[in-house]
Amino acid sequence: MHTYSFFNDYSEGAHPRILDVLVRTNLDQEDGYGNDTLCARAAGLIRKAAGAPDADVHFVSGGTQANLICLNSMLRSYDSVIAVESGHIYVHETGAIEATGHKVHALPTKDGTIMPEQVQALVDAHTDEHMVHPRALFISNSTEVGTIYRKADLEALSAVCRRNGLYLYLDGARLGSALTSRESDVTLADLARLVDMFYIGGTKNGALLGEAIVIPRPELKENFRFHMKQRGALLAKGRLIGAQFAAFFEDDLYFDLARRANAMAERLARGVAALGFGFLTQSPTNQIFPIFPDPLIAELRKSYGFHVWSRTDAAHSAIRLVTSWATKEENVDGFLTTLSALTK
Amino acid sequence: MHTYSFFNDYSEGAHPRILDVLVRTNLDQEDGYGNDTLCARAAGLIRKAAGAPDADVHFVSGGTQANLICLNSMLRSYDSVIAVESGHIYVHETGAIEATGHKVHALPTKDGTIMPEQVQALVDAHTDEHMVHPRALFISNSTEVGTIYRKADLEALSAVCRRNGLYLYLDGARLGSALTSRESDVTLADLARLVDMFYIGGTKNGALLGEAIVIPRPELKENFRFHMKQRGALLAKGRLIGAQFAAFFEDDLYFDLARRANAMAERLARGVAALGFGFLTQSPTNQIFPIFPDPLIAELRKSYGFHVWSRTDAAHSAIRLVTSWATKEENVDGFLTTLSALTK
Amino acid sequence: MHTYSFFNDYSEGAHPRILDVLVRTNLDQEDGYGNDTLCARAAGLIRKAAGAPDADVHFVSGGTQANLICLNSMLRSYDSVIAVESGHIYVHETGAIEATGHKVHALPTKDGTIMPEQVQALVDAHTDEHMVHPRALFISNSTEVGTIYRKADLEALSAVCRRNGLYLYLDGARLGSALTSRESDVTLADLARLVDMFYIGGTKNGALLGEAIVIPRPELKENFRFHMKQRGALLAKGRLIGAQFAAFFEDDLYFDLARRANAMAERLARGVAALGFGFLTQSPTNQIFPIFPDPLIAELRKSYGFHVWSRTDAAHSAIRLVTSWATKEENVDGFLTTLSALTK
Amino acid sequence: MHTYSFFNDYSEGAHPRILDVLVRTNLDQEDGYGNDTLCARAAGLIRKAAGAPDADVHFVSGGTQANLICLNSMLRSYDSVIAVESGHIYVHETGAIEATGHKVHALPTKDGTIMPEQVQALVDAHTDEHMVHPRALFISNSTEVGTIYRKADLEALSAVCRRNGLYLYLDGARLGSALTSRESDVTLADLARLVDMFYIGGTKNGALLGEAIVIPRPELKENFRFHMKQRGALLAKGRLIGAQFAAFFEDDLYFDLARRANAMAERLARGVAALGFGFLTQSPTNQIFPIFPDPLIAELRKSYGFHVWSRTDAAHSAIRLVTSWATKEENVDGFLTTLSALTK
Repeated sequence: MHTYSFFNDYSEGAHPRILDVLVRTNLDQEDGYGNDTLCARAAGLIRKAAGAPDADVHFVSGGTQANLICLNSMLRSYDSVIAVESGHIYVHETGAIEATGHKVHALPTKDGTIMPEQVQALVDAHTDEHMVHPRALFISNSTEVGTIYRKADLEALSAVCRRNGLYLYLDGARLGSALTSRESDVTLADLARLVDMFYIGGTKNGALLGEAIVIPRPELKENFRFHMKQRGALLAKGRLIGAQFAAFFEDDLYFDLARRANAMAERLARGVAALGFGFLTQSPTNQIFPIFPDPLIAELRKSYGFHVWSRTDAAHSAIRLVTSWATKEENVDGFLTTLSALTK
Repeated sequence: MHTYSFFNDYSEGAHPRILDVLVRTNLDQEDGYGNDTLCARAAGLIRKAAGAPDADVHFVSGGTQANLICLNSMLRSYDSVIAVESGHIYVHETGAIEATGHKVHALPTKDGTIMPEQVQALVDAHTDEHMVHPRALFISNSTEVGTIYRKADLEALSAVCRRNGLYLYLDGARLGSALTSRESDVTLADLARLVDMFYIGGTKNGALLGEAIVIPRPELKENFRFHMKQRGALLAKGRLIGAQFAAFFEDDLYFDLARRANAMAERLARGVAALGFGFLTQSPTNQIFPIFPDPLIAELRKSYGFHVWSRTDAAHSAIRLVTSWATKEENVDGFLTTLSALTK
Repeated sequence: MHTYSFFNDYSEGAHPRILDVLVRTNLDQEDGYGNDTLCARAAGLIRKAAGAPDADVHFVSGGTQANLICLNSMLRSYDSVIAVESGHIYVHETGAIEATGHKVHALPTKDGTIMPEQVQALVDAHTDEHMVHPRALFISNSTEVGTIYRKADLEALSAVCRRNGLYLYLDGARLGSALTSRESDVTLADLARLVDMFYIGGTKNGALLGEAIVIPRPELKENFRFHMKQRGALLAKGRLIGAQFAAFFEDDLYFDLARRANAMAERLARGVAALGFGFLTQSPTNQIFPIFPDPLIAELRKSYGFHVWSRTDAAHSAIRLVTSWATKEENVDGFLTTLSALTK
Repeated sequence: MHTYSFFNDYSEGAHPRILDVLVRTNLDQEDGYGNDTLCARAAGLIRKAAGAPDADVHFVSGGTQANLICLNSMLRSYDSVIAVESGHIYVHETGAIEATGHKVHALPTKDGTIMPEQVQALVDAHTDEHMVHPRALFISNSTEVGTIYRKADLEALSAVCRRNGLYLYLDGARLGSALTSRESDVTLADLARLVDMFYIGGTKNGALLGEAIVIPRPELKENFRFHMKQRGALLAKGRLIGAQFAAFFEDDLYFDLARRANAMAERLARGVAALGFGFLTQSPTNQIFPIFPDPLIAELRKSYGFHVWSRTDAAHSAIRLVTSWATKEENVDGFLTTLSALTK
C-alpha cells in the first residue's frame, strides 16, 4: 500500500457535493435514457456557461466512448481523423476509432500540441481516392502531457480546419484543469465558437463518471442519439450523469475543483523544481512530469504511486504525477519531504 | 406529472444500501479501470454465488454495451448470432451488433423464448460460404415479454448449441427477476454450467448503473479487457460498479430486490386479473402485459406512466407495467383502485 | 460430367464479341484504375442508353462488391437497408452488408418482390433512436426467383421511398434478362428516373466479369471512387471491364444476349409445362423453377447440372434451371427429351 | 498522348499467352466461384512451384482486396498490423484495413523495408489492454520503392514474428520482379516456409487481373472462403483468374515475364546512371527512381508518362519509371535518347 497515489485523477470516488445531489434526487422517478429533468437541467446550465444557447448537449459514461461516438458521427466511411502521435485516440484507446472503420493520422509533437502548418501539410498530401480523406482534427486540452492550447492556438487551428473542410474536435477529459490553468486565456464560450464538437470531462474532475458532449455545429447535431445508442452509450439511468453535471454547473463547482487540482500540481512542481529537478514538459495543469534518476524513482515507488512515463536518457526517466480535487496539501508536502530526504 | 410511473424498472436511482456503500468507500484511493479492490471483491462474491471459481467477471455500464462487447468477442468476421424477432439486440439496440460487423438472425416467437428445433433448423439451412456462419445463440432471461426459461429449457438449448459449435449467450438485464420468479428452477450455478457467457443485470435491479459479465467458458476469457477498452467500456472509476455489485452479493440483496419487484408485479397482475382482464403473455416476472380497451388505456394514462406495447385487436392493446425494488404496495393498490373505478 | 449444366448463367467465359474487343485493345497503353478511354467510352454509351447524361457510371468486378459498396455509400452508421427475405444481400452474401456495419431488414415475400405497403409499415414501426433508421430499399430485377418489376411497381416503390426519405437501390445482376422479358415495360431510362442507384449486370449476361454501377442521384455521386478503393474495387486494369461494357452498349449486344437467354428459358419452360409440370414462380426471365418428384430429380441429375432450390412438399422439390446467352436450342431440347423419356 | 508511358506495369492488357488460354477455354462449362477445373489446376501448379503441397491457394481480383481480406482474416477485433510508413496498406488503400476495424502501425523506413528490431520495439511498447495488440507484420516484396528482401532478411523477420506471436504477411503485387531480381536469393519455397500468408501478384506481371493468395499456415486456412465472399471477392467466373495463373505456372511464364520487366528496368537504370544521374533507392526490380532537376522533368513529361514520386531538394525530384513484360528495348532506348538530348 502506498502512502499516497499520484497515479491519476480518478483514484477517489466523487466530490461530496456530487454525491449529495445523487442522494438527494435518488428516489425521484425520472424518465430513462437521458430524457430526464436532471439531464435537461444540466444541459441548460452548460449551454449557458458556454454562451451557446443552440448547442446540443449529451452525456456519456467515459472519454473513450465520447471520442469514438463523436468522431465516428462526423466521418464518412473513407474519412480519417488527424491527431498527434501522443494523442489518446492514437495510443491509448485500443484502436477504438479504427474499430469504427477510420484511420487515425499521427503527427509528430514535442509538447503534445499540434500546429496548423502540420494540419495543412497533411491535408495537402492527401490528393486522391487512393488515400483516405482527412476530415476531422482531434486535439485534447489539456494534452496528454499536461500542456494547453491558448486562444490564439485554437483560433489558428479552427481557421485551418474551416479552410480545409475539417471538423475540429476537442477531447476535454481534463478541460477543467486546462481552462483554469494560470496560463490559459480560453473560456467555454471560446470553445463553442471555435470548435465543432467537444466534451467537458467529468470523471477526472470529481464526478463518479461522465462526460458532457457539446455540439455547437448545427449539422453535427442530427440524430446524434442514434450514434449513442448504437455504441451502448445511452444509459438507462442517464439521470446519474445529468445530476452530476447539474451540480458541477449550478455554481462554479466544476472550475473550483479543477483550480484545486491545479494548485496542488503547482505546489508539487515548485517543490520538485526547488530541489533542482527538471521536467519533461512545462505543464501548467494537474499533470506534471519531473525527470528523476532511476534509483530515486525506485525509492519513491516504495511510498508513492505514479506512472513511469518515459525514459529520457540512460539513467533518468520522467514520471507522471497527477493531482486532483481530492489531493490535500499534506499529500503534496509529504511527497516533497520524502523526495528531499532521498536526494540529500 | 403522473401519480406513479410503471414505465420501467430504472425510474429511480439506486437502492439505499447501494448508495451507502458508494458513500462509505468514496474517498478510498483505488486503482483505475476495474483493477480495484471493490471490483475484485465483487467478482469473488459473484464467482462464489455462481459456484464458478474459475469464471472471469467484468463490469460494464449497460446492457447494450454488454451485448455488443460479449457477442463481438465470440464471433469471427463472418459469424452471425441467432436471436428471436423480439430480441433486444434485434429490435432495440440501433443495430449495435451489426455495427460490429455481424448479422443477427431473427426467429419467430410467441412468448419471447426460442426452441432448440428452431436453432437446429437455422444452422442446418446455413450450408456454405455464400451464407454467414451461425456461431452464437442470444437469449434473454427474463425475456423482453416477461417470460422465463426453466432449467430443462436451458439444458436443451445448451445441448443444441454444443452439438453445433455455437456459443450460448444470455442477456440477464432482468436476471434477478427471472431467477427469483416463483416459476423458476434455475440458479446462477446452472447458468455457469450451461451458458458460455452471460451478464447479471444491475441497472434494472437497483443499481445506479452496471452489469456484471460472467465468462465460464475458458477460451472466451482471453484478452476480454481489450474488447472492453476498444468499445469504451473500461470505466476509469470501475470501482463505481464493483462497489455496487459487492453490495448486491455481500448477502442476498441482489435477489431480495428482485423478489420485491416480482411480488409487486404479482400483486398487480392478480388485481388486474380479478377485474376480468387478460394478458399478452403469462409473465411470472416484473413486467406484465395486461390487455385493455383503448379508451381505458387513455384514461389510465392520465394518472399512470407505462408503455403501450402492442395492438391486440381493433379495440384493444396490451400495455407494459413494470415494477421494481422501489415500487410500493400503495403504488400497486393505487393503480388497481383507479382501474377498478374506471371499469365500473 | 454432365451433358449440360443449367446451374447458372456464368458457366462459360465471355461472348466472343466481348473477347474480341479485349484482344483488339490488348496492347494499347491506358491509364489505370478506370481512368482509361475504354471505361470513358463505356460510361458514355451507358449514359446515352439510359437517357441520363448526368449520371455517374463506375465499373466493379461483381455483384456482391457492387451491393456492399453502393449500399454502404448511402448509409450513415445507424442506417439500415430494407430487403425481402429471399434478397441476395440478406441470404447469399455472407453478411457483406452487415460487415460494413448496417442491419438488413427482411420482409416476407412470395414471388421475390416487395410491396410499397410493406416498406411503409416497416418505416412506420421505426420510431426512435433505440431502433435503426431505415434509409435504403434494396430490390433486384429480375428477382432471385426470376420474377420482374413492371413500371407501375417501380413507380410505386420510388414514390414510397421518396415520401419517406429512403434511397431506392436496384441490384441488376440479371437486369438484361429482366428488361428484355416479354412481360417487362421498363427501360434503362425508367430506372435512371425512378431509382437512385443501380447496377447493370455483366457477369451473368456474357461478360468475363463486371458490373456497371449507375448513379442518377446527384448527392450520391460524391467521392464514390473513395468507397470503391476502400473496398478493393478499383481495378488497376479497369479497362478490362470498360472494354466489355463498351462492346455491350456499342450496339444492342447487351440486350441481344439477354433476349437469347430468355428465349431459351421460355422454350424450356414451355416444354416442361407441356409435360404437365408446374412451377414455383411464374418467371418470364432466364431462371425457371419447375417442380418435379424427387426420384425424377435424382434421375435428371445424372445427366444435367442444376440447383435443387426448395422442397415444395414431402415428395416434390423445385429445381432451378438457368439459361444464358451460351445456351443452345439443342441443350434445351436435349433436356426436354430426357425429361420426357423419364416421365413416360 | 505520350510517346510511351512508364507510369506503371498495368498499362497494357494481358500477355498474349494469357489471352490465348482464355480464348481456348472460353466455352467450356465450369462450376462457379472458383470451384472450377482451371482454378484447381492453377492451385496445384502453385503448390508445386512453392514446394508446399498442403498450402491453400485462392484467387482474387486485386491487391487491395487481397490485403484487406488476408489481414482481416488473421486479426481479432483488437489486433493491429505493423507496416512501414511507405507501406501500401498505410498510404494507398484509402484506409481499407482500418475499414475492417484494425489499426495499422507505420514504422519509419528509408528504403521501404522493415528491420526486426523495429518490430520487436513496437511489440515491446504495447503492454496492456489500453493499446491495440500487434498481431501481424505486413511487408511487400518488392517494396513500394523497388527494393527487395533477401533470404536472411526474411528469416530474421520470420523469427521475430514467431517469437512474438505475430503472423508474417507478404504483399507480392510485384513478387515476380522481386524473386527474379539479380540480387534476390529467395524462392517461392522460401516464402512458403517463412511467411504465414502471401499473394503472388498477377495484375502487374501480365495478367488481365488477379492475385493468387497462398496460405501455408494451417490455422489460417479455416473458412477463408467465407472471408472472400463477405468482401465481394468470390468471382462468379473465378475460372477467369484460375486460367491465367494456370498459364503463368504451366511452365516458367510467370518468372519469364518478370525477368523481362527487370531487364528493361536495368537497361533503363544503366542508361540513366551513365548520364550521371543518381537514384532515390537502389532498386534491382522493375521500378526505378532516378533523381532529375525539375526543369528536366518538365521536359521529359512532354514525351513520356511517369509519376513524380517525391521532392529530394529545392531543385530536384525523384520520378518513378516502371517497366513491364510489355516494355520493349526501343521504348527504353527512346527514353534514354530523349534524356541524353535534353541533358546536353
